[in-house]
Amino acid sequence: MRKGRAARRQAEATSKRQIDYHNLKNPFPVMRAFSDDHIAAMHEGALHILETHGIKVLLPEAAQIFAKAGARYDADTQMAYLGRDIIAAAVASAPKEIAVAAGARHKDITLKLGNLVFQPGAGAPHATDLVKGRRPGTREDYDDLTRLTNHFDVLHMIPPLVEPQDVPLNVRHYFTLKSQLTLSDKVPFVFSRGTPQVQESFELLQEFRGLTDAQFAAQPHCYTIINTNSPRTLDIPMAQGLIDFARAGQVSIVTPFTLMGAMAPITVAGAITLSHAEALAAITLTQLTNPGAPVCYGTFTSNVDMKSGAPVFGTPEHYRASLAAGQLARFLGLPWRSASGSAANANNVQAANETQMGLWGCLMAGSTVVIHAAGWLEGGLSVSYEKLITDIEVLQMVAELCAGHEEAGSDLALDAIAEVQPSGHFFGADHTMARFQTEFYAPLVHDYANYGTWEERGRPDTNARATQIWQDILTAPQKTYGSDTARGALYDEIAKRTAAGGAAPVS
Amino acid sequence: MRKGRAARRQAEATSKRQIDYHNLKNPFPVMRAFSDDHIAAMHEGALHILETHGIKVLLPEAAQIFAKAGARYDADTQMAYLGRDIIAAAVASAPKEIAVAAGARHKDITLKLGNLVFQPGAGAPHATDLVKGRRPGTREDYDDLTRLTNHFDVLHMIPPLVEPQDVPLNVRHYFTLKSQLTLSDKVPFVFSRGTPQVQESFELLQEFRGLTDAQFAAQPHCYTIINTNSPRTLDIPMAQGLIDFARAGQVSIVTPFTLMGAMAPITVAGAITLSHAEALAAITLTQLTNPGAPVCYGTFTSNVDMKSGAPVFGTPEHYRASLAAGQLARFLGLPWRSASGSAANANNVQAANETQMGLWGCLMAGSTVVIHAAGWLEGGLSVSYEKLITDIEVLQMVAELCAGHEEAGSDLALDAIAEVQPSGHFFGADHTMARFQTEFYAPLVHDYANYGTWEERGRPDTNARATQIWQDILTAPQKTYGSDTARGALYDEIAKRTAAGGAAPVS
Repeated sequence: MRKGRAARRQAEATSKRQIDYHNLKNPFPVMRAFSDDHIAAMHEGALHILETHGIKVLLPEAAQIFAKAGARYDADTQMAYLGRDIIAAAVASAPKEIAVAAGARHKDITLKLGNLVFQPGAGAPHATDLVKGRRPGTREDYDDLTRLTNHFDVLHMIPPLVEPQDVPLNVRHYFTLKSQLTLSDKVPFVFSRGTPQVQESFELLQEFRGLTDAQFAAQPHCYTIINTNSPRTLDIPMAQGLIDFARAGQVSIVTPFTLMGAMAPITVAGAITLSHAEALAAITLTQLTNPGAPVCYGTFTSNVDMKSGAPVFGTPEHYRASLAAGQLARFLGLPWRSASGSAANANNVQAANETQMGLWGCLMAGSTVVIHAAGWLEGGLSVSYEKLITDIEVLQMVAELCAGHEEAGSDLALDAIAEVQPSGHFFGADHTMARFQTEFYAPLVHDYANYGTWEERGRPDTNARATQIWQDILTAPQKTYGSDTARGALYDEIAKRTAAGGAAPVS
Repeated sequence: MRKGRAARRQAEATSKRQIDYHNLKNPFPVMRAFSDDHIAAMHEGALHILETHGIKVLLPEAAQIFAKAGARYDADTQMAYLGRDIIAAAVASAPKEIAVAAGARHKDITLKLGNLVFQPGAGAPHATDLVKGRRPGTREDYDDLTRLTNHFDVLHMIPPLVEPQDVPLNVRHYFTLKSQLTLSDKVPFVFSRGTPQVQESFELLQEFRGLTDAQFAAQPHCYTIINTNSPRTLDIPMAQGLIDFARAGQVSIVTPFTLMGAMAPITVAGAITLSHAEALAAITLTQLTNPGAPVCYGTFTSNVDMKSGAPVFGTPEHYRASLAAGQLARFLGLPWRSASGSAANANNVQAANETQMGLWGCLMAGSTVVIHAAGWLEGGLSVSYEKLITDIEVLQMVAELCAGHEEAGSDLALDAIAEVQPSGHFFGADHTMARFQTEFYAPLVHDYANYGTWEERGRPDTNARATQIWQDILTAPQKTYGSDTARGALYDEIAKRTAAGGAAPVS
């Protein structure tokens, strides 16, 4: 046994574990919030709302598309009343499986029920870390967070992690696309801030990836997120985004943000029924625009703190809302996105508790895409570099449990059990020695030092270790993606378009 | 709407939610680690180990009990070889449902598959909090932690939270029992440290509860935890405890502590097969002693860090081990216990991540009893007052999701949705106003202040809030249990027995 332990020390127990965190299958049995009958009633309720009470559609083009399909549209109130036949046809034509091309084939993703795709936190106006503190997001933050997202295989899509507030709005879409394309080879995100920006983004992306028009139209290469304005409003940039992405065959992820007790009813079933109605309306707009256009069902439903009205996350109500939304997604048969998140103001125990509780709601709900799965603080007002790292630890542990890795550890070891006598141990057993570098998940940031060692080292907090990790990644030589030619052409094109004034966002 | 918001403020949004956290049913669909065939092979492997390779039994009385049932026993090596018929009979006679009496009827628990019982961390030599720091556990800590455990309905049994090291071992069992009986009305724990201490504990408990011999024999009123000495050893106090508790009709929870790569094979299936074999041997001893004696299957299987050999918790391997143990418990049809836990040295993000990850492994494994579910740090070397509070927050959120509460939030709110127009909100809707004090879980320690308010308040950490909470509970007037007469008699009896020298533990 002595020999074995020495040999193990010599090898410094470096983990040689190789697990593929791409293309995860959700291994968790699906949990229900409500009975199937209740879910059917919620769907029926949503249909009733859309046909009887309607949804406000601010974009004339969208109103025309609905009207052309037979919906009643009241131009004075801007309310569209969508019959259930229109919606049923849209649900039928929406694809059940969406293969999205990344910059590299092994990072392609397929959105369908049963698959599991993680995104870090999205949409934060602020960035925060333990070195520079909390500040409005900058281009540097955007680049850094894109690189960090790209670094970890367990994050599968690039969301708009932070708003680069130091980049003027008329050229911000150039900057964010350039950052995603040159610092990452994962599926990029394009904001729906009006047709001019969206079209330019499509053109630059197509050019950078070297795609013909037919190739770009044949498969999605990017995605957008559409938040309806709850309750029951489709605003101009969101409706335009749905139309633009559907026409181009690119992915819309439809996500009503329905906070129970604020923009939605206080009950889980009420909030999800409203969210479902809004999602159905948005999905219908994509399918009326281009039947078969790639669209992902979704919800982001949590509750508010009734003392302050502030949104909260990782609560039992949030968990249950995810379950209910998952039931409705399966009712439709569509891939869908949910969200984790935290209301904490710093990456502390609360932040960890809430984010993981929210995550398990998504996992048990059978989510296809889990957004805000890492780094999201303050209900989305900031993204934390340290929290990004500590949440990735949890996501990697979840990925280890995913289908495809389930044969791990299945060896019964009966010979080893027979070999090691009472009072003995398995440290030096051949069975152990053959596996010690590969059998266990190797932690990213979690610290296994004992108390004495930990004290000698100055009692490092999880966050301090996380700081070291993101700094190490960002100070390593920067990897860039795309050929020199493609990057050069992109930079030239952006310079030209910038000189021409860029494109103002539509609101 | 203005009226509604004002009214809400006036009521200060005090939560009036009343949820019963007793008698929880596990609502989570069960997850498998391995195929049913593989589980059957693991059971078969365990039987093979027990009959062919044997288990070391250090207590002669236990060896005699096994031998009398037909097991081969080698007195030189102290190895007992248990045939599969003996084990099958024991599994058949072990009760599938165990009703355990607490000090109050509404705190009684029933151990059976499908029920969910939480215990805080058990067995720590040290206590730690942010006021007094880390120190060897004292009688004051033991009392405080008993009171805190009793305070929260989501904790259902009193474990030995901390070792009161300032109480001499020969009278420690008096102290711990007195603390549990007079500061709590939950199910108490008795350490198996030899027949003298166990018998005294039974006598004092029976007297305090006012039970006849027949009543005490007819229903369990306390429990012990039996850790086998892995690999394959039943030591003297543990074997004696199994016999004593079985004879008295009190509950043994059998828990091999099998660390993958250390005291057990490095693979999940190997470690659980060994754990299963040891648990079967222990369960068999109880049933040979007293067929039908209440015994709970269990495992505590996690892995070690292969760099340091230190035990780690809340890892994917720990999670998967819980799943596999749950499959074997259901294979036997017995109630069973699992464990969460953390290797972190302080209540930080890692501690929260690990404990919750471990918890979800237990929940998805269909555990009956989850031990170390709150407060456990350093792999059990300390129990943290703050972590007790922050973990209870998570347990309460899980309890909110439990069966029996599932109708919560089921109202579709179609009238409210119709009433609130686009651009409106639901804050002041009648539907919201009728429910805002009861609809949502009210957090214990999580902080929903926005960033500005949080900063003004001095950026309180989750732990600082937790300190305030446990201090408030412990500085409130102390509640005592049992009648004055019962307490007086207990104190007198303990004084008498202490004067007589107490009872030394057996090792």
